[in-house]
Amino acid sequence: MCQLLGMNCNVPTDIVFSFTGFATRGGRTDVHNDGWGIAFFEGAGVRHFVDHQAAVESPVADLIRRYPIKSKNVIAHIRKATQGRVALENCHPFVRELWGRYFVFAHNGDLKDFNPELNGPYQPVGTTDSEAAFCYILQELRRRFDDALPMLPQLTAAIAELTKEISQYGTFNMMLSDGSALFAHCSTNLHYIVRQHPFAEASLCDEDVKVNFSEVTTPNDRVAIIVTEPLTTNETWTAFKSGELKVFIDGAPLA
Amino acid sequence: MCQLLGMNCNVPTDIVFSFTGFATRGGRTDVHNDGWGIAFFEGAGVRHFVDHQAAVESPVADLIRRYPIKSKNVIAHIRKATQGRVALENCHPFVRELWGRYFVFAHNGDLKDFNPELNGPYQPVGTTDSEAAFCYILQELRRRFDDALPMLPQLTAAIAELTKEISQYGTFNMMLSDGSALFAHCSTNLHYIVRQHPFAEASLCDEDVKVNFSEVTTPNDRVAIIVTEPLTTNETWTAFKSGELKVFIDGAPLA
Repeated sequence: MCQLLGMNCNVPTDIVFSFTGFATRGGRTDVHNDGWGIAFFEGAGVRHFVDHQAAVESPVADLIRRYPIKSKNVIAHIRKATQGRVALENCHPFVRELWGRYFVFAHNGDLKDFNPELNGPYQPVGTTDSEAAFCYILQELRRRFDDALPMLPQLTAAIAELTKEISQYGTFNMMLSDGSALFAHCSTNLHYIVRQHPFAEASLCDEDVKVNFSEVTTPNDRVAIIVTEPLTTNETWTAFKSGELKVFIDGAPLA
Repeated sequence: MCQLLGMNCNVPTDIVFSFTGFATRGGRTDVHNDGWGIAFFEGAGVRHFVDHQAAVESPVADLIRRYPIKSKNVIAHIRKATQGRVALENCHPFVRELWGRYFVFAHNGDLKDFNPELNGPYQPVGTTDSEAAFCYILQELRRRFDDALPMLPQLTAAIAELTKEISQYGTFNMMLSDGSALFAHCSTNLHYIVRQHPFAEASLCDEDVKVNFSEVTTPNDRVAIIVTEPLTTNETWTAFKSGELKVFIDGAPLA
C-alpha cells in the first residue's frame, strides 16, 4: 500500500511543511520506500517529480523540502509496491493531457482483476493497476464529454460514477486534479483539514518540526490538506467516509 | 530563439558535463533566460524538469548539474520566448503518451501561421507554436499507424514527412524521442558529436570545465551529443545539413 498527500488552496502556497512530514514516511517512520512522486500545478503547467528511490534518500525529494514551489494544487505519493515492479514508470503521480489541460492522478490501494478495455488514446506506460485506472477514467471522461471540459457538477458526477465503478475491484483511495479542482475519493483511509484565519501553530507527527502559520499567511489565505494519515498532532483532522468523493476548490471542500 | 541539447547513448550516461555548459547559456553566456527544461528517459519512465526561471538561477537546474541522473536518451531546452508568454506550460521539452510510450519533444525556431487542425486526442496546454507542432506530429503518427508502434524505418519515414511539412512554416530545428531512438531535425542550426573509445579530454566553451572521458567510461560506451551550437572547444562537431533528419540509436546516427 502507499500514502497520498494533496493540497488545494485559494492562493499559491508551498507544501514544504506537509511534504517534510510526509516524505519521512517514505523509508524512515514508515515502510513506503519503493519510490515517490509529486506534481505541482503552476498555472496551466505542471512540475512533475518522480523518483524510484525512497523519499528519505532521494536528492530530488531533498530539493522539494528546501525549495518552496508555490502552487494551488499539489498531489504527492509515496509508494509501497503491490502491483508493478519498482521502476520510474510505476511511480505516482501520473500526468496526462485531456481537453488541453493536464490531469494529475495518484492512487493508494490495490485493485484485483481490474482489466478495463483501454481502446482510446490513453494507454498505460507502466504496469500498475493505478495507471490503468487513471487511463480508464480519462478515456471515459473523454467519451462522455467529447471535446470540451464540462461544467464542474457534470464533471464531478462523472468522476463519482467512475470511482464507484472502479472501487468494486478493490481499495481505491485516489486524488485527481486538473489544476482548478482537486477530487479525492476514499475507500478506506483519507483525512483532510482546512487551515484558515485565525491560523495557529502546527506540529508534525513524523518530524520534530513546528510552524506558526499565522507568520507565513495573510488573513485571506485558505489551504486544504488531504492525506492518508493525519500529519500533525495538535490539529483536528476530518476522516472521509468510505465511498466518499470530495471536491476541493479554493482551499475548501464543496458542500 | 532557443537552444536544444540532446543525448543518445548505448548505456545509461549522465549529462552533467554537457548540461553545465548548456545551462550557462540560459542567462549568462547567452540570452536564453525565459525558462528551460530537461527530460530523461529511465527505462519506460521519464523524469521531466521544467522551470520558467533562467537556467543559471534555477534551483532545479542546480540539482541537475549536481545529481548525475543516468539515461540513454535526454532532451533539454533553454528558451528565449518568441511565441507564447514566459510560463511553465510553455517550457520545453513537452511530454505526451502515444502507444503506451512517452514521447519527449523540444523545438528551436519560429513557425509562422502554423495552425494545424488538431481534432484528435492531443491538444496544446500552452500557447507555443512548438507544442502545437508536437501535438500535430503525435496526432498524425497515431492516425497513420493506429494502435501500435511501427517498425523504425516506417516511423522514421513518417517523421521525415511530417518535419518536412512543418518546416514549410518556418524554422524547425527539433528533437523527438520515444526512449529508444532520438530523432533530430535541422532547419538552420544543429551539430553533433559521437564520443567513443579511445575517449579523450574535452573542454567546455561556456565554463572553465574539462573532463577526461577515458576516466569515466568503459571501452564499450558510446555517446552522441546533439546541440544547437558546439559545446566544446577541442572536439570536432559535425553540422547537420538544412532539412536533414537524423536518427540516433545506441549513441550513433543511423546511416
